[in-house]
Amino acid sequence: MTQKYVYYFGGSKAEGRADMRNLLGGKGANLAEMVNIGIPVPAGFTITTEVCTIYYQNNKQWPDGLEDQIREAIGKVEAEMGKKFGDPHNPLLLSVRSGARVSMPGMMDTILNLGLNDTTVKGLIESSGDERFAWDCYRRFIQMYGDVVMGVDHDLFEEIIEAKKQEKGVRLDIELNADDWKDVVSKFKALYREHTGRDFPVDPFEQLRGAINAVFESWNNPRAITYRELNEIPHDWGTAVNVQTMVFGNMGVDPETGKGSGTGVAFTRDPATGENVFYGEYLMNAQGEDVVAGIRTPSPISALKEEMPEVYEELLQIRTKLEQHYKDMQDIEFTIQRGKLYMLQTRAGKRTAAAAVRIAVEMVKEGLIDKETAITRIDPAQLDQLLHPTIDPNTKAKVLGTGLPASPGAGVGRIVFTAEDAEAWKARGEKVILARTETSPDDIGGMHAAEGVLTTRGGMTSHAAVVARGMGKPCVAGLESAKISYEAKTITFADGTVLKEGDWLTLNGTNGQVLEGKAELIEPELTGDFATIEEWADSIRKLKIRTNADTPHDAQVARNFGAEGIGLCRTEHMFFAADRIPVVQQMILADSAEERQKALDRLMPMQKGDFIEIFRVMKGLPVTIRLLDPPLHEFLPHTDKDVAAVAKITGLSEAEVRTKSEALREANPMLGHRGCRLGITYPEIYDMQVRAIFEAACELAKEGIEVVPEVMIPLVGTAKELEILRANAIKVAEEVMEKAGVKLQYHIGTMIEIPRACLTADEIAEVADFFSFGTNDLTQMGFGFSRDDVGKFLPDYLEAGILEKDPFQSLDQKGIGQLVDMAVKKGRGVKPELKLGVCGEHGGDPASIQFFHRVGLDYVSCSPYRVPIARIAAAQAQVKFPR
Amino acid sequence: MTQKYVYYFGGSKAEGRADMRNLLGGKGANLAEMVNIGIPVPAGFTITTEVCTIYYQNNKQWPDGLEDQIREAIGKVEAEMGKKFGDPHNPLLLSVRSGARVSMPGMMDTILNLGLNDTTVKGLIESSGDERFAWDCYRRFIQMYGDVVMGVDHDLFEEIIEAKKQEKGVRLDIELNADDWKDVVSKFKALYREHTGRDFPVDPFEQLRGAINAVFESWNNPRAITYRELNEIPHDWGTAVNVQTMVFGNMGVDPETGKGSGTGVAFTRDPATGENVFYGEYLMNAQGEDVVAGIRTPSPISALKEEMPEVYEELLQIRTKLEQHYKDMQDIEFTIQRGKLYMLQTRAGKRTAAAAVRIAVEMVKEGLIDKETAITRIDPAQLDQLLHPTIDPNTKAKVLGTGLPASPGAGVGRIVFTAEDAEAWKARGEKVILARTETSPDDIGGMHAAEGVLTTRGGMTSHAAVVARGMGKPCVAGLESAKISYEAKTITFADGTVLKEGDWLTLNGTNGQVLEGKAELIEPELTGDFATIEEWADSIRKLKIRTNADTPHDAQVARNFGAEGIGLCRTEHMFFAADRIPVVQQMILADSAEERQKALDRLMPMQKGDFIEIFRVMKGLPVTIRLLDPPLHEFLPHTDKDVAAVAKITGLSEAEVRTKSEALREANPMLGHRGCRLGITYPEIYDMQVRAIFEAACELAKEGIEVVPEVMIPLVGTAKELEILRANAIKVAEEVMEKAGVKLQYHIGTMIEIPRACLTADEIAEVADFFSFGTNDLTQMGFGFSRDDVGKFLPDYLEAGILEKDPFQSLDQKGIGQLVDMAVKKGRGVKPELKLGVCGEHGGDPASIQFFHRVGLDYVSCSPYRVPIARIAAAQAQVKFPR
Repeated sequence: MTQKYVYYFGGSKAEGRADMRNLLGGKGANLAEMVNIGIPVPAGFTITTEVCTIYYQNNKQWPDGLEDQIREAIGKVEAEMGKKFGDPHNPLLLSVRSGARVSMPGMMDTILNLGLNDTTVKGLIESSGDERFAWDCYRRFIQMYGDVVMGVDHDLFEEIIEAKKQEKGVRLDIELNADDWKDVVSKFKALYREHTGRDFPVDPFEQLRGAINAVFESWNNPRAITYRELNEIPHDWGTAVNVQTMVFGNMGVDPETGKGSGTGVAFTRDPATGENVFYGEYLMNAQGEDVVAGIRTPSPISALKEEMPEVYEELLQIRTKLEQHYKDMQDIEFTIQRGKLYMLQTRAGKRTAAAAVRIAVEMVKEGLIDKETAITRIDPAQLDQLLHPTIDPNTKAKVLGTGLPASPGAGVGRIVFTAEDAEAWKARGEKVILARTETSPDDIGGMHAAEGVLTTRGGMTSHAAVVARGMGKPCVAGLESAKISYEAKTITFADGTVLKEGDWLTLNGTNGQVLEGKAELIEPELTGDFATIEEWADSIRKLKIRTNADTPHDAQVARNFGAEGIGLCRTEHMFFAADRIPVVQQMILADSAEERQKALDRLMPMQKGDFIEIFRVMKGLPVTIRLLDPPLHEFLPHTDKDVAAVAKITGLSEAEVRTKSEALREANPMLGHRGCRLGITYPEIYDMQVRAIFEAACELAKEGIEVVPEVMIPLVGTAKELEILRANAIKVAEEVMEKAGVKLQYHIGTMIEIPRACLTADEIAEVADFFSFGTNDLTQMGFGFSRDDVGKFLPDYLEAGILEKDPFQSLDQKGIGQLVDMAVKKGRGVKPELKLGVCGEHGGDPASIQFFHRVGLDYVSCSPYRVPIARIAAAQAQVKFPR
Repeated sequence: MTQKYVYYFGGSKAEGRADMRNLLGGKGANLAEMVNIGIPVPAGFTITTEVCTIYYQNNKQWPDGLEDQIREAIGKVEAEMGKKFGDPHNPLLLSVRSGARVSMPGMMDTILNLGLNDTTVKGLIESSGDERFAWDCYRRFIQMYGDVVMGVDHDLFEEIIEAKKQEKGVRLDIELNADDWKDVVSKFKALYREHTGRDFPVDPFEQLRGAINAVFESWNNPRAITYRELNEIPHDWGTAVNVQTMVFGNMGVDPETGKGSGTGVAFTRDPATGENVFYGEYLMNAQGEDVVAGIRTPSPISALKEEMPEVYEELLQIRTKLEQHYKDMQDIEFTIQRGKLYMLQTRAGKRTAAAAVRIAVEMVKEGLIDKETAITRIDPAQLDQLLHPTIDPNTKAKVLGTGLPASPGAGVGRIVFTAEDAEAWKARGEKVILARTETSPDDIGGMHAAEGVLTTRGGMTSHAAVVARGMGKPCVAGLESAKISYEAKTITFADGTVLKEGDWLTLNGTNGQVLEGKAELIEPELTGDFATIEEWADSIRKLKIRTNADTPHDAQVARNFGAEGIGLCRTEHMFFAADRIPVVQQMILADSAEERQKALDRLMPMQKGDFIEIFRVMKGLPVTIRLLDPPLHEFLPHTDKDVAAVAKITGLSEAEVRTKSEALREANPMLGHRGCRLGITYPEIYDMQVRAIFEAACELAKEGIEVVPEVMIPLVGTAKELEILRANAIKVAEEVMEKAGVKLQYHIGTMIEIPRACLTADEIAEVADFFSFGTNDLTQMGFGFSRDDVGKFLPDYLEAGILEKDPFQSLDQKGIGQLVDMAVKKGRGVKPELKLGVCGEHGGDPASIQFFHRVGLDYVSCSPYRVPIARIAAAQAQVKFPR
């Protein structure tokens, strides 16, 4: 017995089912499913995806038995529809469409009106009673077939139509009559013959064979291949082919019954808001492609209630039936042929984040789905939409360019070109956009002051992008097409537009667009449904969600968003504050240990103050504080003006300041004298920080506020480093606590961010209370990619398919993930109770969160605005991979 | 039964043996061994290293039974020597010396003449018949005991002697008589009482107990601890204590027999040349310490033949016996007491590299040892001595400072401060030393022109150091105590000496010294023995030895040294040549692909010429050529002058050149747009290089010269990169070969130098013919250490014991080694025939070579001057870990 290649559907019985998506493709499986649940679908059949695979393996030949199965299926269709394929009086016409396992919209080919020839067109005239309609169908068929199957240039057909219209002195296709189309058909056939060297095929089965093969061929057209690579769809899946009876929304009114034709698309709920209303639009006397083309304005679906009440009622019933059956909001296509309703497609509908949340919550309340299913219905990445202001979609502002969508949300303000100006303008009440070629830690203050940040260099993980995301501030990065002149204080865009300081600009950090002028913004709303689904996520997930926060404000935002602690509090950001940087510079430039200690003694109360505020906000929750990490030269002046200022403060000559700064300069600061290496060479700096942490904690403890400090030592590559620094920290901590008469619970752990730390994690675990994976640096070192420089080649790498995703955005599970997994196993191998978390940018990325869940981390930590996203992603991970 | 703590030796029977070194220490084991083979040794006993460990574990108490065992051993010594401990007439005097498993010269304490007190000193006068000798012995004992056991300041004793000499109006100790020393003894005892609060102990066993404990204590004195840390000697090994009968080389002539006394040290062969002659010196009527002190000039050992023919004959017999027994050259100490010869020590003698080679070869020829043993007798690191010019040890030049011994050998020349000057001066026939704060790739030409390179910044693996080692050129790096002024063209040393351009300077790259003026140099000689032992190494080793060579000259040097191919030919060094860099710059600054192609078309014949010469030198051997690796900005100008020159050449404005250079600048060039990333973004560059390689190879093939090109793609982190670039390379290679009508065997492989490459080595192996581990970069990325910046904290890391060695000099086997091992296993797992090598700096480091042997690599590649070292090290690895 030969294999089954063809699955019939039609009437009330189909051979396929919805769960046969891999075999029948998404469209075919759903057509079969609709038939099975009694929804009217034009009869047809699906040729399986396996046939496509065989076709390519088999030198583009059909397998034995396929033709017989197709002919048999056509017979069933003929019986069901009461027409015959090739019949000169009442011909069955077919559509031939691709349909892969997952939707690849517009990537593959379709052929309509198949079965027409000089004989059957007469049958169509007869059966439809509409001569113009029939000739129009025929010319459409030749045009599509010539283009898709034989590769005759589409434009050549259009030229013939154009010539016809000129000849007739008309402008629109609709103004051409039956004879005109008949003439066009004859010219099309001549064109076809001229370009293919043979006559247009008259045998309907030959037509069908060509169309089926064309669909198979289109699986491997260049744009489909590219689409699959971009979307990680395996090339060997193949496409199914759906052959289905043509129904016509453009067949007009039935002369006997007076019932009309039309076509429409609809969603079972509002895809923008999620409201439980029937939502869609339709056009009377039109084909599906007319709706898409946008020549005529469709009517809202509600109007159909007046125009065709029975059809509308039937559609409403189908809507309910589909939702009850699929338990999800559906996106449907339908055609009404002279009063008879046919469903052509159903699939899960795309929706906004707000709609996704509302639909998920309401469907649980309606009893359609459970909470676990509801959680999986949310695309966590999409939730960003709900957490930032957005640009009013009706805005008419000119797009000046599109950079990288580096930090979501919209910002509107007047352009300034320096961080100082940003702060100054903000101080006098202006809203500003900070535009820089790139930003540095010096610019933090200005970035805080700005409504948004624009850079012309740097990637998704450049300084500007990372800091802006941390601040929840919109950022468009790497707008390479624009040029900034700091001297002239202007920015010149690709189209020649020049904006100067003070001009208004709008940034859309969600899609990377930069708009001229002042666009209207829509403020985000956290609806009750959003809160509900987050609570459900909390009840499901195993991963704790912490936040990366350096200020009391960020900590509060994150706590409001549900953060369960701070996973990364970067102390260096505190060092950059305007009132501190001079003291920090004094400390760095000190000639002796005593001078350094003097500066540290001045810094200590400031750091302590920071910690007190953060501990207060996070009361009862753990706070992980990372000791100083960046290389010291980052704190030193770069411009002549800054050098002069530092010289004045420190009492050194400008030359001395320059020389000392120069001596600290590094070839590769990323791999230089930073992190715990500073703690080893300047133990007094870390001692000061630990003292500040514990004095702060003790003070609050005396107020009765519970504090759980976790001291994190960065950049450890050997167990010995941590052993030494841990001992130092414990000494200071115990000293402070003894003096204060307070006994606190505390932990001392390390970032795991150097490949060697993963390789020797067993040794390091012996002296660590916790590991926090610094996957940013681990990615930098594991890949050998400087994230400040990767923008130079990353686009090429993504385009060439060398990388599937930016590894700084989504963890490279295959490579860097091995290091994480290895460190988890080695660490827990010697210390089962070792607490494990991650505090890199990846802590907010859903795919990475799933990975961290699977390898068994205890928590992820992400920027405040990603906490709600991480909560959902963590719950999804648990649903998918229960642990 | 209690444990055995004490091992007796004396007469013709010892309880210990040479192979009990761990228990008895090196000295004790060899004393016992000498007794066993019938060599005269003053009787004594060894307290085991275990007792030292027990002493520390047991609150510094002796274990039960130790005292009894000591007393029993003393009894045996008394019987053997015919004296009694504490005897008022013929007292036994003892020496008490430390003796660890491995020699820790001068680190621990010794006490001599133990057993003297006011009673026994009279017995010593009686038995020796020399009153002055006896009182001198007594005062030496009090002085040593007071200092070592009780911590009385050595200088206080010396002050008493000084006062005595002033009182007597004499200058030398030898001018004091018996009464003077007697008076000194009485003053010493008073001093002892004053500082310790008690009388000098009179009971000999109490003296002994104190001395033994003092030796145990000295195991943990600070300098011993530091020494152990530096030499990786475990702290829990402990020291043995050797208690031995005192014999006196200063006892003068026996009044009865007329036979004299003396002391000496000797080597069984010449430790400088290795010649098979008895070599040493002695002093009549002296103690061992007098030989060391250098007050009197000793006589050569041959003079003893005249002076004491029987003793000399006995020594010759002992020399033969020891060599036959130990089968190695021995370093011995002896004392002659009134005509009787005693051996006090034997151990393997330290020797120069030349001596090591000659001794090893001759001992094989003499049938003493086999070739495998001979190989293990060479310290491969020491061979450097034989491969570079050295400074005449008689030179009197002033040492201006000591930097890092970055590249061995000596260089003499006139100081210049820029690479251009170096080239210009060289061109007019001057010898120059290039002095820079640090070097960059721009300086390559100048470094080539110089006799040696001095930098005031950077570590052992700084650019200057790495390049100089590669060139076999002496380099002193990181002489931080000196300051260079480029403006004044001067260098100022720590002592205030200022040298200016044109002054003569001598560098000793072997020990890091910088000498004023023009020292005499000794040229290296490769003796026949050296060649012999290298050949033996070749017959033993499994690892192939290749070289890193970028020029025909280097290739020839390496081939002469026995290199079996080129493992790394860096094409970028060719790009820096003066006639090429402008074309390279045009290529980089090109605005369009066509312009770039034009520049590449000009570069192609130049590259091809390079390859032809190198292939010709290496005919028949594989040559691995690495395609362009460094970031492009390294080729662009940095100074205003250079910018102007480039602007002129390229026809761009200076501002444009600056802007374009700036745009290519990177935050962390090490992790930036370099290696195969350039090949992906600018495929035309790699295509040019591959074309040059294969056109060169085809041309030579037509001449009948066998060429085995191996194309190496650097910095691969994903299999896809290599897949793409391999396909490109094969396309070009096949094209060239087809056109030339030549069919060559060739390989395309990759550097494994990114951690992720190790993690995904299985995937990468699928598309690689070979892996060559780039352990420099792997160490940089695996550790997160920029080798240009590591100098800022590496010294602290070594001092704190965080790192045992500079990981850029000797592979970190525990961490980075795991990555290598993982990649070997994953690579061979999918492709058992995969060829594996290493081309980082570690390829020339003996410890690393052993590791590479063990993990199963096929070859190591090192700089030309390290090839002979690597050959020996590889053979040693095979002897130690046969595979």
